[in-house]
Amino acid sequence: MSVTAVTAVAADRSVRAPLPVLGRDVTVPLVTGGEVTYAALDYAASAPALQRVWDDVAAYAPYYGSVHRGAGYLSQLSTDLFENARVTVAGFLDCRAGDQVVFTRSTTDSLNLLATALPDGCEVFVFETEHHASLLPWREARVRYLDAPDSPRQAVTTLERALAGRAPHTPALVCVTGASNVTGELWPVRELAAAAHAHGARIVLDAAQLAPHHPVSVRDLDVDWVAFSGHKLYAPFGSGVLAGRADWLRTAEPYLAGGGASRKVTRRADGGVDVEWHDGAARHEAGSPNVIGVHAVASACKALTEAGFDGLAAREEELIRAVRDGLADVPEVRFLSLFGDDAPRVGVLSFVVDGWNSSHFAAALSAEYGIGVRDGLFCAHPLVRRLLGGEPGGQVECGATESLAAIRVSFGAGTPDEHVERFVRAVRELVRDGARWTYRTEDGRCVPDTSART
Amino acid sequence: MSVTAVTAVAADRSVRAPLPVLGRDVTVPLVTGGEVTYAALDYAASAPALQRVWDDVAAYAPYYGSVHRGAGYLSQLSTDLFENARVTVAGFLDCRAGDQVVFTRSTTDSLNLLATALPDGCEVFVFETEHHASLLPWREARVRYLDAPDSPRQAVTTLERALAGRAPHTPALVCVTGASNVTGELWPVRELAAAAHAHGARIVLDAAQLAPHHPVSVRDLDVDWVAFSGHKLYAPFGSGVLAGRADWLRTAEPYLAGGGASRKVTRRADGGVDVEWHDGAARHEAGSPNVIGVHAVASACKALTEAGFDGLAAREEELIRAVRDGLADVPEVRFLSLFGDDAPRVGVLSFVVDGWNSSHFAAALSAEYGIGVRDGLFCAHPLVRRLLGGEPGGQVECGATESLAAIRVSFGAGTPDEHVERFVRAVRELVRDGARWTYRTEDGRCVPDTSART
Repeated sequence: MSVTAVTAVAADRSVRAPLPVLGRDVTVPLVTGGEVTYAALDYAASAPALQRVWDDVAAYAPYYGSVHRGAGYLSQLSTDLFENARVTVAGFLDCRAGDQVVFTRSTTDSLNLLATALPDGCEVFVFETEHHASLLPWREARVRYLDAPDSPRQAVTTLERALAGRAPHTPALVCVTGASNVTGELWPVRELAAAAHAHGARIVLDAAQLAPHHPVSVRDLDVDWVAFSGHKLYAPFGSGVLAGRADWLRTAEPYLAGGGASRKVTRRADGGVDVEWHDGAARHEAGSPNVIGVHAVASACKALTEAGFDGLAAREEELIRAVRDGLADVPEVRFLSLFGDDAPRVGVLSFVVDGWNSSHFAAALSAEYGIGVRDGLFCAHPLVRRLLGGEPGGQVECGATESLAAIRVSFGAGTPDEHVERFVRAVRELVRDGARWTYRTEDGRCVPDTSART
Repeated sequence: MSVTAVTAVAADRSVRAPLPVLGRDVTVPLVTGGEVTYAALDYAASAPALQRVWDDVAAYAPYYGSVHRGAGYLSQLSTDLFENARVTVAGFLDCRAGDQVVFTRSTTDSLNLLATALPDGCEVFVFETEHHASLLPWREARVRYLDAPDSPRQAVTTLERALAGRAPHTPALVCVTGASNVTGELWPVRELAAAAHAHGARIVLDAAQLAPHHPVSVRDLDVDWVAFSGHKLYAPFGSGVLAGRADWLRTAEPYLAGGGASRKVTRRADGGVDVEWHDGAARHEAGSPNVIGVHAVASACKALTEAGFDGLAAREEELIRAVRDGLADVPEVRFLSLFGDDAPRVGVLSFVVDGWNSSHFAAALSAEYGIGVRDGLFCAHPLVRRLLGGEPGGQVECGATESLAAIRVSFGAGTPDEHVERFVRAVRELVRDGARWTYRTEDGRCVPDTSART
């Protein structure tokens, strides 16, 4: 089975520079003395703004104005900018004619919105391996949680079996990630979409981790909806997207009730109130829209498209290989994966280090090397629990040698080689030599103990 | 009855300059030739960013990092910034100990959130005069719409009568604006809060229009919750606030389901999923927070507090008087009010012009004077309908001499005298001489006809 979300990364392997991002020159203090440029290796949580996105925001900000009913020049300019952003995003996602682009605040928000638009009796099918944002929003629906597969092929057969077993002719929705926020592994989205449609179900793609790294074509993948977040797409200004089929959205109750979503409100003779709601995207966008956030998302879509995903993905592949190769001979480092270590992935890798508590290790990477990673369960508790093979969570203790959680390193279009090289060197040194500083537990985290030095 | 939301504006009437805002030097083309600095007089819809807010955003942006579980330096810095913003907002609103500050995207979002937190059987009492964001979110509740009062005193007696008539010992919530988004008039919030509490009800203050103009003290007004939007508070970066009593919020279903709101997620033996949700603000803030937006809100709170509301309100009073006095001898201009023309208000005034369609008039203010106002029904249809004394809405026709909608002029801390002076002059000239350009109807709006000149 081909993992179709992977594009032809082999096309152009010429080395290219990272895209300029804000914060690329920021230095941070080391507990061991001195300063170092900050290595932001937590892109999977939130990525820095592209310099281009920031420049676009800064250029627009003086022209900010109220959108829609404002009669002034800047209101009209802002309205055009806002509505043109929809067109840009629709192009970025290669949407079908008639698809709708709704601006939300994040992927979480997008999926919660879609959850309110499910038809009556809709069943939802979701793998237990999903991020909580995909796992939990389906509160009104009957949800079937599917066991973690051990290969892309098994993901498809698991889904097919589950869909075949449901009551026929009832509406159903499959929700699946394009790239895991824990393992970075690519999921067989096109094949899952085909399976869903073959069984009369619809599918929504959680592209939060995929869209920053690979092109996402609604048309090619044949997904019904796609959701992503600006803040993972180098546009951290509070906006996200839900795009796709208009029909369920059109008949759903408005996501938020308020101005902008309401076309006409009248007081009835009996004292009540009648509301006519809008049909289009406005139906689910009540309240003044986050024009700057939306503009930032559109700017990022343009910047990534112009930079070219082929080259971005090729460069990221090299960084992934640098991590894997650089730590291949360190047996204490165990990467987490569902589909095998060599499965295609985006620049997101989670691991544990034998003999180390993950919070302790992450704290040392930060304090002694200026590297920002993440430790924890990554809002995907069932998956991390399965991958760790035990009961994760619980109390963090700096001295503990158990991995109650994992460490995640993640990167993208703005990451220079040096950050990944420093990370590899740091991991090797910490495993070999231990931390140079002492750490203590505070508020459930490991932090440098500034009163002592080893 | 004293309108207690009005603070001692008489304290310091020394003239002071407007606070610097972005866009203060932006010029826009006139249809009649030349360019002019843009007069943003649509603050009630959305206000420009304070220069200070922008500077704070720009200073922070390179240090942006993922909040909460990130182990890196910038993650910790960003987490501190985010959580400190809560403290700043709580101070700005003079919250009680134990009150909770939840970051939302807007007032609309805040009130929709509160609507999901109502106890079973809760009745909601809301005046028909409210913005749709206050009128419509209470979808699960039994809502009692109260008739428009003609004085602050009547507002209180209307509420008291309605509350007295309800079933005793059932939970109830009153939702009321602090300042009308149509008339700018101040509502007797403290008296309404006292009435609500005397009858065992709670009260939420929609401070979207009040907070940018007057200090809001949760403690002094004795309201249970307050909601406001960053984008009306000179911080248009996609964040808003709901602040107040923690109890209803603590027991409510999480507003959004996803990461951040979930403390622990486990797969059950029967295949289902168990979720433990957080108790605090995080319960309702699932998804990566809009750190830049929240930082901008906190920055605006600080900037307004430091500038001093006494002086800001005194200056705004002078601008209001300049509008009223400047148009007092123009009988064609009729201001809309519930409580009388001299009722205390913020810098928000709506009016119609006899002989003019409002869209036409607003278009001329923009195209011939570079003034941005708003025409329409301002997301408060029942109120505007009542004030216009007829059936508003319907087709816009440039040539029509009926006012199917109103025109709203609004301003605030960034408004220079010249904008208001230009507005007064423009209204006088348009009424006296008519428009210099011709306009045509396009997509339900009046726009300059660029093919002809009168």
